[in-house]
Amino acid sequence: MTEFELIARYFSRPCPDDAVLLAGGDDCAVLRVPTGEALLVSTDVLVSDRHFPANTAPFDVGYKALAVNLSDLAAMGAKPLGVTLGLALPDIQPEWLNEFARGFYSLAAAHRVCLVGGDTVKSPVLSLSVTVLGSALPTQILKRSGAVVGDLIAVTGTVGDAGFGLRAVLSPKTIPTALARHEITYLHDRLNRPTPRLAEGQKLAQFAHAALDVSDGLLQDLTHILTASGVGAEISLIDVPLSPAAQTWITAEPRAALLPLSAGDDYELLFTVRAEDWPRIDFKATVIGRISAEPGLRVRDAQGHIVPMPAQGFDHFAAQTPPR
Amino acid sequence: MTEFELIARYFSRPCPDDAVLLAGGDDCAVLRVPTGEALLVSTDVLVSDRHFPANTAPFDVGYKALAVNLSDLAAMGAKPLGVTLGLALPDIQPEWLNEFARGFYSLAAAHRVCLVGGDTVKSPVLSLSVTVLGSALPTQILKRSGAVVGDLIAVTGTVGDAGFGLRAVLSPKTIPTALARHEITYLHDRLNRPTPRLAEGQKLAQFAHAALDVSDGLLQDLTHILTASGVGAEISLIDVPLSPAAQTWITAEPRAALLPLSAGDDYELLFTVRAEDWPRIDFKATVIGRISAEPGLRVRDAQGHIVPMPAQGFDHFAAQTPPR
Repeated sequence: MTEFELIARYFSRPCPDDAVLLAGGDDCAVLRVPTGEALLVSTDVLVSDRHFPANTAPFDVGYKALAVNLSDLAAMGAKPLGVTLGLALPDIQPEWLNEFARGFYSLAAAHRVCLVGGDTVKSPVLSLSVTVLGSALPTQILKRSGAVVGDLIAVTGTVGDAGFGLRAVLSPKTIPTALARHEITYLHDRLNRPTPRLAEGQKLAQFAHAALDVSDGLLQDLTHILTASGVGAEISLIDVPLSPAAQTWITAEPRAALLPLSAGDDYELLFTVRAEDWPRIDFKATVIGRISAEPGLRVRDAQGHIVPMPAQGFDHFAAQTPPR
Repeated sequence: MTEFELIARYFSRPCPDDAVLLAGGDDCAVLRVPTGEALLVSTDVLVSDRHFPANTAPFDVGYKALAVNLSDLAAMGAKPLGVTLGLALPDIQPEWLNEFARGFYSLAAAHRVCLVGGDTVKSPVLSLSVTVLGSALPTQILKRSGAVVGDLIAVTGTVGDAGFGLRAVLSPKTIPTALARHEITYLHDRLNRPTPRLAEGQKLAQFAHAALDVSDGLLQDLTHILTASGVGAEISLIDVPLSPAAQTWITAEPRAALLPLSAGDDYELLFTVRAEDWPRIDFKATVIGRISAEPGLRVRDAQGHIVPMPAQGFDHFAAQTPPR
């Protein structure tokens, strides 16, 4: 199969979006950005055995590659315009490609975003490079740098699930026996099929001060907001929202209680808002702390004591064990 | 060095472009697309030892990664708006990164295009994924599909140089002794530092019917225009523009005469125009043939005989020897 045949077979679904003037088959894709809106762009690279276990189901690889990129648009309050995919493959396995494309397109269709272009090349290592394009009113773009002293700090959904899901995949023997099978499935799904919080981000863009998506770990990502905004923060460990599955795990293994602070890959939105704007939030979100003038980040336990910081999130070049 | 330190050290040069509202440091970059213009986007992936020899100078790797992408904008007549870089690295070699960044930024500065975002990850194999963003008036976008019977077929610059340059790198012993040292250097440079024909593309967008950039090989790329436009073509081998270095090589090794038809990587613009528009061209370009109603592509030699087609361009998944 040639590169052209591969693209024709797996990556040429019709695009019903009339903002996409030309997709595929030429040197560039051509899109229309809504009048008055700015263009947003983000690129993420995922490498097999590094960003996802090599035995991850191809459906999930395709799903997640798009999800983590859409999440970057969500974090700034943008609407998706289109996506390009750079696919580096060791070889052509029709079944793998079919499932990969199915996963990718299932999430794309759910958010009405078209695959508008890309590149497919041979490489010894499977890797994916996804670039998402989006748009937003320039006055409604959620940056990391807008947090203000006194702001509530909140997060959508629950955190830590992807971290427990990764542990469940990498070290299945360490899964506490208290976890029901559906809870393990839930944690796997949270790892492999994260939900880009696009609607939430677009709503937050109307009034929130700062936001990002939790990809490196709650504490590390909050630190990015604090650094960009020149403020500090205090958060309360017991307020960090956990799923029933994560709660079951922590009850069975109390020393895992800090994992939700440092594990990445949840792709929930972490944001700051004025307290008086909190009632405007019409989706699941939980206040976990406050922005302070005092620099640094303090985590308090149920008794109000400062919790020593765990090792922070995942850094690709740090001397720590990567996921395998 | 962490990923953040790496980006800060090598990939955080200031952006003087006021169309770039936000570059780096947040979840997305934010750009302004000129009012009334469409957005153009293209992604290319380059893998070490596949798209460039593994011993290619890092300056050239950086230069070429950007050049081949800017060339896609040139081929559609667009102006560059910004670029994102996905960099997958086996390890951190400061000298390599420094030179890579120097090559990348030297071409970026020449075309006033800013690196607005990207991702840096660890991978067993060096690979680069570049996404360029550009803009153009929707009525002045050069597609592959507009060729009309009777059009002149022309190409900018000279073709075959990159192909000879690759042979010079891969099999230095086969370089004819007739080639002067500066000619060999010239061929290497054409391989490693292709020139994106941005000004030429923007000019052509005003009147040309169809265009693309020669990346897979002259014949294969011309076939893309013919297929997209539903026409045929006849080209004249002796009219194909060659550099003095390529001419010297072919004189010394006559059986290499067809290499300029099938070698890729020249990144010259191949285009079709009405004969009456030819005088509007104010840059180096050479007519090599005509669009015909008869389907297919015929190449004629100096005596007017049909030349049997050589094996066509480079396909990443075809069963042929990749560059090493």
